Amino acid sequence: MSGIGQCKEGDAITQYLLIKSATKSVASNGKPFMTLILQDITGDIEAKLWDSSEQDEQDYTADTIVKIEGDITTFRGKLQLRIKRIRLATDQDPIEKSDLVPSAPMEITEMVDYINQFVFAIENPNIQRITRALVKKHQQPFFEYPAAVKNHHEFVSGLAYHVVSMLKLAKSITELYPDLDTDLLYAGIILHDMGKVTELSGVTAPSYTVEGKLLGHISIMANEVVQTAQELGIEGDEVTVLQHLILSHHGKTEWGSPKPPLIREAEVLHMIDNFDAKITMLNRALDKANPGDFTEKLFPMENRSFYKPAYLTNTTLVEN
Amino acid sequence: MSGIGQCKEGDAITQYLLIKSATKSVASNGKPFMTLILQDITGDIEAKLWDSSEQDEQDYTADTIVKIEGDITTFRGKLQLRIKRIRLATDQDPIEKSDLVPSAPMEITEMVDYINQFVFAIENPNIQRITRALVKKHQQPFFEYPAAVKNHHEFVSGLAYHVVSMLKLAKSITELYPDLDTDLLYAGIILHDMGKVTELSGVTAPSYTVEGKLLGHISIMANEVVQTAQELGIEGDEVTVLQHLILSHHGKTEWGSPKPPLIREAEVLHMIDNFDAKITMLNRALDKANPGDFTEKLFPMENRSFYKPAYLTNTTLVEN
Amino acid sequence: MSGIGQCKEGDAITQYLLIKSATKSVASNGKPFMTLILQDITGDIEAKLWDSSEQDEQDYTADTIVKIEGDITTFRGKLQLRIKRIRLATDQDPIEKSDLVPSAPMEITEMVDYINQFVFAIENPNIQRITRALVKKHQQPFFEYPAAVKNHHEFVSGLAYHVVSMLKLAKSITELYPDLDTDLLYAGIILHDMGKVTELSGVTAPSYTVEGKLLGHISIMANEVVQTAQELGIEGDEVTVLQHLILSHHGKTEWGSPKPPLIREAEVLHMIDNFDAKITMLNRALDKANPGDFTEKLFPMENRSFYKPAYLTNTTLVEN
Amino acid sequence: MSGIGQCKEGDAITQYLLIKSATKSVASNGKPFMTLILQDITGDIEAKLWDSSEQDEQDYTADTIVKIEGDITTFRGKLQLRIKRIRLATDQDPIEKSDLVPSAPMEITEMVDYINQFVFAIENPNIQRITRALVKKHQQPFFEYPAAVKNHHEFVSGLAYHVVSMLKLAKSITELYPDLDTDLLYAGIILHDMGKVTELSGVTAPSYTVEGKLLGHISIMANEVVQTAQELGIEGDEVTVLQHLILSHHGKTEWGSPKPPLIREAEVLHMIDNFDAKITMLNRALDKANPGDFTEKLFPMENRSFYKPAYLTNTTLVEN
Amino acid sequence: MSGIGQCKEGDAITQYLLIKSATKSVASNGKPFMTLILQDITGDIEAKLWDSSEQDEQDYTADTIVKIEGDITTFRGKLQLRIKRIRLATDQDPIEKSDLVPSAPMEITEMVDYINQFVFAIENPNIQRITRALVKKHQQPFFEYPAAVKNHHEFVSGLAYHVVSMLKLAKSITELYPDLDTDLLYAGIILHDMGKVTELSGVTAPSYTVEGKLLGHISIMANEVVQTAQELGIEGDEVTVLQHLILSHHGKTEWGSPKPPLIREAEVLHMIDNFDAKITMLNRALDKANPGDFTEKLFPMENRSFYKPAYLTNTTLVEN
Amino acid sequence: MSGIGQCKEGDAITQYLLIKSATKSVASNGKPFMTLILQDITGDIEAKLWDSSEQDEQDYTADTIVKIEGDITTFRGKLQLRIKRIRLATDQDPIEKSDLVPSAPMEITEMVDYINQFVFAIENPNIQRITRALVKKHQQPFFEYPAAVKNHHEFVSGLAYHVVSMLKLAKSITELYPDLDTDLLYAGIILHDMGKVTELSGVTAPSYTVEGKLLGHISIMANEVVQTAQELGIEGDEVTVLQHLILSHHGKTEWGSPKPPLIREAEVLHMIDNFDAKITMLNRALDKANPGDFTEKLFPMENRSFYKPAYLTNTTLVEN
Repeated sequence: MSGIGQCKEGDAITQYLLIKSATKSVASNGKPFMTLILQDITGDIEAKLWDSSEQDEQDYTADTIVKIEGDITTFRGKLQLRIKRIRLATDQDPIEKSDLVPSAPMEITEMVDYINQFVFAIENPNIQRITRALVKKHQQPFFEYPAAVKNHHEFVSGLAYHVVSMLKLAKSITELYPDLDTDLLYAGIILHDMGKVTELSGVTAPSYTVEGKLLGHISIMANEVVQTAQELGIEGDEVTVLQHLILSHHGKTEWGSPKPPLIREAEVLHMIDNFDAKITMLNRALDKANPGDFTEKLFPMENRSFYKPAYLTNTTLVEN
Repeated sequence: MSGIGQCKEGDAITQYLLIKSATKSVASNGKPFMTLILQDITGDIEAKLWDSSEQDEQDYTADTIVKIEGDITTFRGKLQLRIKRIRLATDQDPIEKSDLVPSAPMEITEMVDYINQFVFAIENPNIQRITRALVKKHQQPFFEYPAAVKNHHEFVSGLAYHVVSMLKLAKSITELYPDLDTDLLYAGIILHDMGKVTELSGVTAPSYTVEGKLLGHISIMANEVVQTAQELGIEGDEVTVLQHLILSHHGKTEWGSPKPPLIREAEVLHMIDNFDAKITMLNRALDKANPGDFTEKLFPMENRSFYKPAYLTNTTLVEN
Repeated sequence: MSGIGQCKEGDAITQYLLIKSATKSVASNGKPFMTLILQDITGDIEAKLWDSSEQDEQDYTADTIVKIEGDITTFRGKLQLRIKRIRLATDQDPIEKSDLVPSAPMEITEMVDYINQFVFAIENPNIQRITRALVKKHQQPFFEYPAAVKNHHEFVSGLAYHVVSMLKLAKSITELYPDLDTDLLYAGIILHDMGKVTELSGVTAPSYTVEGKLLGHISIMANEVVQTAQELGIEGDEVTVLQHLILSHHGKTEWGSPKPPLIREAEVLHMIDNFDAKITMLNRALDKANPGDFTEKLFPMENRSFYKPAYLTNTTLVEN
Repeated sequence: MSGIGQCKEGDAITQYLLIKSATKSVASNGKPFMTLILQDITGDIEAKLWDSSEQDEQDYTADTIVKIEGDITTFRGKLQLRIKRIRLATDQDPIEKSDLVPSAPMEITEMVDYINQFVFAIENPNIQRITRALVKKHQQPFFEYPAAVKNHHEFVSGLAYHVVSMLKLAKSITELYPDLDTDLLYAGIILHDMGKVTELSGVTAPSYTVEGKLLGHISIMANEVVQTAQELGIEGDEVTVLQHLILSHHGKTEWGSPKPPLIREAEVLHMIDNFDAKITMLNRALDKANPGDFTEKLFPMENRSFYKPAYLTNTTLVEN
Repeated sequence: MSGIGQCKEGDAITQYLLIKSATKSVASNGKPFMTLILQDITGDIEAKLWDSSEQDEQDYTADTIVKIEGDITTFRGKLQLRIKRIRLATDQDPIEKSDLVPSAPMEITEMVDYINQFVFAIENPNIQRITRALVKKHQQPFFEYPAAVKNHHEFVSGLAYHVVSMLKLAKSITELYPDLDTDLLYAGIILHDMGKVTELSGVTAPSYTVEGKLLGHISIMANEVVQTAQELGIEGDEVTVLQHLILSHHGKTEWGSPKPPLIREAEVLHMIDNFDAKITMLNRALDKANPGDFTEKLFPMENRSFYKPAYLTNTTLVEN
Repeated sequence: MSGIGQCKEGDAITQYLLIKSATKSVASNGKPFMTLILQDITGDIEAKLWDSSEQDEQDYTADTIVKIEGDITTFRGKLQLRIKRIRLATDQDPIEKSDLVPSAPMEITEMVDYINQFVFAIENPNIQRITRALVKKHQQPFFEYPAAVKNHHEFVSGLAYHVVSMLKLAKSITELYPDLDTDLLYAGIILHDMGKVTELSGVTAPSYTVEGKLLGHISIMANEVVQTAQELGIEGDEVTVLQHLILSHHGKTEWGSPKPPLIREAEVLHMIDNFDAKITMLNRALDKANPGDFTEKLFPMENRSFYKPAYLTNTTLVEN
């Protein structure tokens, strides 16, 4: 059966859905109700849960799976799900969160292989060993976590997928600018955001942990590099340099890097990170716009609204 | 014979040299003298012209070729040229400025071919025709001008070489991010800085023209796009979009773009421009530094001084 | 009969009105309704259209004329129009938009005369011919367009009226500071915002066109100056200088001028533009305030709220 | 006889001159010498006082009149005064500082009349009486002080002349924008910078007093307004409003106004002040430049260098 | 009986309360109602006044005492007061505003004594006499006014209490840094915010007066210092210095000080002021948070949200 | 015998001095010479070493001790040391650097005791153990290093003395604001700058190490806290919180803290750090100024120049 993203008015559905967000309100008759945004992997839809009880409010919270029976109506031009029955999914239900949330467009195993290829391409033994040890240490969350809470790569395995894209870009760039040190650049890319597995609370509907708020993924990870180096008995310039790449990857102190990039590969790492994040945001926003229109405003890009040239056919919508 | 960049103390030379800069001073005995920086393609050296006359001051100005007989001495650890004879080069002398100034590490003909390849790869006929017409119109200066007065690509053919590097980068990037419109991106790269042939005064020792100061290469070029389109009878979205790419390529209004990038390819154009300029500056600064040292401060990169990791062998010095 | 701005509670009206804005909402009974702001030349009033249909939503959009029968009620201290009948105006109705929207407090013909006087006062033939040609080319929209979407001179013929006010100011100033070049200043004033006839979508309820968003009225107009010069066979310093006046009239790069003013008259043009805009905003805001009170916050003036001194009698309210 | 500004090489002079600045240095022979800039009303010239004694250093300081016998030589293309005899002027010498320093291009008596005219044009009796009392209180320095230490109106009577120019401008503007309150605007203009008679140390070669540095002319003058009002037994809104005009005339807190303009006439006062200062600076800088050239950089105008259009004949040089 | 801050669901109350804020709305049935925030010294509670009349809206405004009979209900987890009867308090009612608003945790008489101690500790007679005269002049409001409209010390006698805290801090600091001039620092602390008795409208629910908005407490008070000095026949450096301390106590021009601190004790005054304000805000916000949680966002502290460490027991909640 | 700071013109000296800085120049006769700044514990003096050899340039570098015979002359009002004999000090000479450089006005042993007192006053065992371990680990450099390269506490033991002053201040403050957690605050103060023992190159004439430049003392120390906690087997909130105090102590991201203070005690730590540094700078600058004068400009305090009130007797000069 097709997912919630393909429903049409009049469809009746019985389906597992993940609650993406749940908001309580009071109707004009004074009675409480809830507005749920429900998702599966194909998209999301709004539903109202009228006359909600306190129990409902406790049960139906964000990041919870529910089983719903209902039908699709239209409300002022937008599809809405009218709930007939709703219950929490239990361990007996044949469903997992990962079945319901979007994830990277690449298999985890494939990403593991791809990234490991680059780990082993690092020729400096100190840099390789530190990188390898850290990938191994955080193996599972590293390949499952999103890269952010919102804005870009905020899907399952978004962190690893962001790394894969950056490595591809780095490979091309180092071929064009052969002075660049591939060891440093590859290691920097693989490690730069790995601290997010501590900064964020989990794979789906993540929030910031206390450590994340007080220390940030940058300091967390710079720290892990030293610890790992010590455990491996590695000392010297490479350890300092690797830490610096992580510390400086936000590019400016006002963006949270305690030091700006002071090594060429740190500057390149920052630019590649920025590049992949921006293109990803732009592609997604433009996919939703028609030729001749402007996208919604993109907050992390100075709130700009981008134009999709009118002379383009809308083929990119299909491709993606 | 080897050039001025390879001289050692004690060498006697008789050579054509280009005056890179000429400064007048008064010695402690009250007599005027001049300090000349003299260059050939291999490097530059300082020389003092003692007891200089008013005629000397008129003759020996920046961007002038002289023939010099002298010998190499050391003054406080730095090589200096002691002038025995000096005269202006004339039309009879078998020397041209281009023999004495550094230029792009690629033949002009090769760059012409490379860039044309991209012109012809543009599939949209309107964009291709405008681009082709402008490359043709400015053919000679476009392939000879530097990209700037200083900081990066400030050598003969620096403008075209910068475009070549950006096209290479764009080609790699569009393969990795296939949603990008290659037509727009290629045309934008080729045209974005072409206004510099009007903004700058010439190929060697360039300064800003009045038009350059009052209008800037951005407005100059956006304007030429419209004129060319009109001459070719082209109208519509493509003309607006191409103009926008040029207008927005500095990325922010405070950096002189009247509009920030509002088209995906305009954003990418800005990032690629930035990328190539920064890497070029970094490579050059790092080539002069030893492993374990920091470079001189790079003004256009927030005055940062970059570290060359100590664990690296100095092979890049040789390669470049 | 008096207009909507003079109505009192209890009045019954049958009148043509222009929809200034139309917003859809849902009432607490779940039924859709629309909130319309309706204007004639004397002011505006709010009205609710209860139980609105989809057809209503399609018909009653901003910038549309309707004929309404209704009466004036008070709702929480504010007048409101209770709609009894509403229909779209048709070509048969003896009404035009210009009858319903505020416009400049000066006849168009008078403004044409006034501005032409200044065109002909320009002594430099190159500057005069370019200015004259452009006024002629854009004659109709130039004398009908507003100067902005909101904030100041956002009424019919606001653009030309803004130019008239600036010319008056320029005339006084050049008498006091005779070094100023009147040719340049007059031409600059007449042309500086003329690109708005391309940047904005129309005379009433204007929005930004795609060209407006991607290029802006500054680049559009600088471009037209060159084209016009070429058509007239004019070359040289005057063309560059005129372009510069237009390019720099926002005063700073961060305000969208690719170059800051670098010519005395460009600086003066910027200051006069600023002066007329600010005084116009201030006068309007103060007209609505009572002595001893502060105005509403003025967003384009750093959100300041201005004081109307208590010792002043409220005569300015009458005068204006 | 003509002044120092008209001398030519070879002229012998015997003349009173004011020391504009005096700098001590050591010659390459280890002996001390002084560099003096000497001025009369027609201009200034540099002179060296070789082998200067400690007494010389104590005597020949800035703002001192000397009698000099010497002749005019040329040193590297610039005129220089070779001192044959120098002595301090004494009370017996028929010379006063005011004979040697540039001053406003309007007689003091004429300025007194002009400004008084505006004082008496103020209709509000409270505002008029306060303004009149303060003009009277500071009569002498107000009409003699410069408006600043440097940049604009830094000549004798520059303060009053700046006020005169602003009043002229205000008169024109209030005719064009009749809503403006002339009482407030005229009083504000006359008083806004009057605190400079306390902030600055004197008429010629002024520096900042301790009160000037710690309080500034803005706070000093706002304070005097209240005191004067109290002495005259005036209370109420006008006193507050007048103070506000003075406090806010720098336009922004970051420019030293404790409050930004919050009254229309305060905003206009700020704009007129700014306008007169900028035009004055621009006129002076452009007078020294040739058509087709750029002026020196103007620090208080964001360090911009202004262009004097090439197509202009140099008539303004003559006029001024 | 306990206050409104200690009520529980089901309690019936008959009590005087001060209206802290009153907002008008329209219910979904189209009828007007008011939302009142009602306070006594123990806290505040929300109440709805359904079907409110125009008279109600006129009567029940902020800073008015009402007598209310009602009972405490719960609405969506928050206590609410259901109004049964409400009337304005009259002069006959045995209640005063000060009975209903929070005030400084120190008796006024105690604060008077404490502050006077410091006045008399000032050894410089000029500084002491000015300070003493001003404390005497503003005696009553100085000891009753809040220090601000919101954010910190916005309770009865908040101004004097803020001064007391700062004096305590100054005493400790001057013992540790004995170079500091206690005379200046004590006088500066006592006077720095005294202008607030003119800037603010009153003791409870204060707003800004016209003088407050146009001049600000800084200019008002600097001015009073001079006037007082004149009345006492005091002249000289101390008067200038005291004014400077007041003028500069916001620390930067962009924060409203016309001069930044240019005297050591002025800098210290600014730092102590800042310190006491911030700690007070932080303490209050943290008192409401549980260990392991973050506080609400604190707007005047760059909108930061502060963490209360999880390892702390919640004893501070009890203590305060 | 008295030191170099007490010499008068005509004195003959034979003394060990530390070279504070050494600069090479060329005299007007074309011969090289060196300008040395020589210091002992009482002050410093300039000396010229004429006709210096290459050997001299290699020998007489900053941070080197020399033995000098010479006499004191006056050159243009400033004392200067005329060198008669100079040689490098050797291991046989009875002199150590610490004899020649200023150091904290408190014995190291006293500081050790004082700081340890606070370590043991920390009640939370986790926080105490981590702090104690780190003080022990860095014991020697921690009590010998300066706190900075310049500006404040740039003398021997400046780091520990800065900590001592801050602890004193913290003690007073926590008595006045008892909600503050002394454990956190004391530990934060003791540890916050300890990373400087890695960031700086040594005790005298320190420069930044590569680690210092690439990582900074903030990241270095945050890292050491975690390592130490791991070695001690400590986990949990306290470790995160301590790290946060160190990471945030510069107060803002643009000042190099990757996180702004998000814990009350972190904010207080930042304010105390700031307070002690500023007072120290101010005291030193004012000690050199006479009453009625302004200090030199203080770069780290926004380049302000501070006033020393004229009414003060110069007793602080004596005291200090």
